[in-house]
Amino acid sequence: MSLAYPCRMKTPRFTPLVADLPATVPFVGPDAQMRANGRPFRARIGANESGFGPSPKAVEAMRRAAPESWMYGDSECYDLRAALAEHHGVTPAHIIIGEGIDGLLGMLVRMLVAPGDPVVTSDGAYPTFSYHVAGYGGVLHKVPYRDDHEDPGALLARADETGAKLLYFCNPDNPMGTWHSARVVERMIKAVPHGTLMVLDEAYIDASPSGTAPEIDPDNPHVIRMRTFSKLYGLAGLRVGYGIGSPDLIAMFDRIRNHFGMGRVAQAGALAALQDQAWLQSVQGDVARARARIAQIAADCGLYALPSAASFVALDTGRDGDFARRLVDALMARDIFVRMPFVAPQDRCIRVSAAPDGPLDAFETALPKALADCAHATKAPQKT
Amino acid sequence: MSLAYPCRMKTPRFTPLVADLPATVPFVGPDAQMRANGRPFRARIGANESGFGPSPKAVEAMRRAAPESWMYGDSECYDLRAALAEHHGVTPAHIIIGEGIDGLLGMLVRMLVAPGDPVVTSDGAYPTFSYHVAGYGGVLHKVPYRDDHEDPGALLARADETGAKLLYFCNPDNPMGTWHSARVVERMIKAVPHGTLMVLDEAYIDASPSGTAPEIDPDNPHVIRMRTFSKLYGLAGLRVGYGIGSPDLIAMFDRIRNHFGMGRVAQAGALAALQDQAWLQSVQGDVARARARIAQIAADCGLYALPSAASFVALDTGRDGDFARRLVDALMARDIFVRMPFVAPQDRCIRVSAAPDGPLDAFETALPKALADCAHATKAPQKT
Repeated sequence: MSLAYPCRMKTPRFTPLVADLPATVPFVGPDAQMRANGRPFRARIGANESGFGPSPKAVEAMRRAAPESWMYGDSECYDLRAALAEHHGVTPAHIIIGEGIDGLLGMLVRMLVAPGDPVVTSDGAYPTFSYHVAGYGGVLHKVPYRDDHEDPGALLARADETGAKLLYFCNPDNPMGTWHSARVVERMIKAVPHGTLMVLDEAYIDASPSGTAPEIDPDNPHVIRMRTFSKLYGLAGLRVGYGIGSPDLIAMFDRIRNHFGMGRVAQAGALAALQDQAWLQSVQGDVARARARIAQIAADCGLYALPSAASFVALDTGRDGDFARRLVDALMARDIFVRMPFVAPQDRCIRVSAAPDGPLDAFETALPKALADCAHATKAPQKT
Repeated sequence: MSLAYPCRMKTPRFTPLVADLPATVPFVGPDAQMRANGRPFRARIGANESGFGPSPKAVEAMRRAAPESWMYGDSECYDLRAALAEHHGVTPAHIIIGEGIDGLLGMLVRMLVAPGDPVVTSDGAYPTFSYHVAGYGGVLHKVPYRDDHEDPGALLARADETGAKLLYFCNPDNPMGTWHSARVVERMIKAVPHGTLMVLDEAYIDASPSGTAPEIDPDNPHVIRMRTFSKLYGLAGLRVGYGIGSPDLIAMFDRIRNHFGMGRVAQAGALAALQDQAWLQSVQGDVARARARIAQIAADCGLYALPSAASFVALDTGRDGDFARRLVDALMARDIFVRMPFVAPQDRCIRVSAAPDGPLDAFETALPKALADCAHATKAPQKT
């Protein structure tokens, strides 16, 4: 005879899905890397944070809101949604605010993806999206990049073949910085298979040339576009992102979200940032100049800068992922924090965030030395 | 012949679980109620926010952190976890920080509760917990209150009968303000059935008399205790709560959480608040005085104040839920925001948050008039 139940069950009893999730995280954070490195960074240019900072008006709004932190933030984010609706020419019912695009992606996956459900993304695209898909038991189907660009045709074909519930597409792309024109994206949205929701992640759209952001009918049920205050608005540490989609889709977020999750300081800061478009424009200029400077620094060392419409530049080392990894480590040893793509062949590159001159001066000084370190490291094993 | 697939699937395709969730929310927020009321509140004493405010040192820390908001918050919340660990005599591995207890409850339910899994709570206990259980398809088993207290013996028995994965227990209780002694809670923790994780929600513990917080072996895998900066620390709008539990349990949060979800200003504010225990103690005195004053205001109107160990007082109207609802509405018509329990027989009460003299003066003026309004409203139908 066997016991139907063990006398002493292990506690707590995690769901089989959660128990099987890997312990790896999508990203080790900049502060965690700094602690591991044991010293402050000389250049924090790895996480696409904006060293140009937020609008001083946003800072002032946060400071004014601080003493009001005893009150919950508005559970409906009324003022911020109204302002975003006006900014985008939609209604507040088209807008969902969340704890960064990361938080919104998690909720969106939860809403659509049950265990076993198919999802399509590019191989090497944003790992936090893939993390959420895995976290809800979805099955990821990955399409290769094509010439360092996401491949709209291949993504659509795979979505059709697999019956994907979600199709993730980031434009401009992270981590490569490449982009497709609005026309290409508009054609893609028209061609999304029925039954598939396209997630258009436009985290970096504010850094792109005009003609990159598509016109989207806000009532189109086949696409949700994601935006954020974390990148060019310079508010990564505030955790405010938003989605624009059809009201039926947006309303469903209310059934699962943490209704008081958006804090009072966060809402006030984001609203003031949105209202200071002059600051955004000045940062756009700063970012364009920084991209050009990064490209020049790279060229001086024999590296090729991929054209970028984002607030970072992918620098092609002309070697492979092992080399790029050594270069990232060698830069970190010199207190320069950069990152690199995770997947071949994109992982031949390192990714450097647009930043003010101070950090880029440090990068300029360190890059040739770090490259020399890598050259030595490469030769060393052959001598032994 | 029938088609295996409809030619045009409705998009997006929500999971059956999410599609069936109700559109109701656990709470309408204070700001949303204020908008609906059309005027500012004269007393915001319904959501157990602390009108005594946060520590001025916390406000100063938030203000200092505001210009640094271009950087993501530390994904590991290293400094705050270290300080909390020291404060509680545990290690950082025992501590998970999240977007309020609400956010942590959502993650905890996700980790343990698959569709159909049993969960035990009290009938009328915190609706946001029940919201998350429903959101992941759990089956709620509810135990009645006993003499306006949560009933430890009945909760344990129901957890045993149903094989509950989670047992929710709030001490001091919300919405009644009643409490059990540390000894009772310690006995309860010892008696939790194997296979059940007890969630000890101590959101209001800082308002309770000594002898209420149990000693808990931090490695005990059968219980997780939840604390927050939202209540006596006066930082509801900052969204920082934390859980203390066994390292194996705490580590599992890392597999699903939004790793960059805790903002930079939020971490800085909470850390400074924790470090100002003198402020907390002064608020504890303020809260005790406010509770006494609320009881006196109630007594002057013939209402009975339940003894409370929380930062609010439940006032027994001596009538039923319909009457209490009319009283809440009549107070709102006079710009006084209070709430009430959702479930009979507790819903004979209204719930009033401890607050400074200004809002309580307004409450004192409004309560007799609102009671008179209700008496008229009650009699009116009998005259016609």
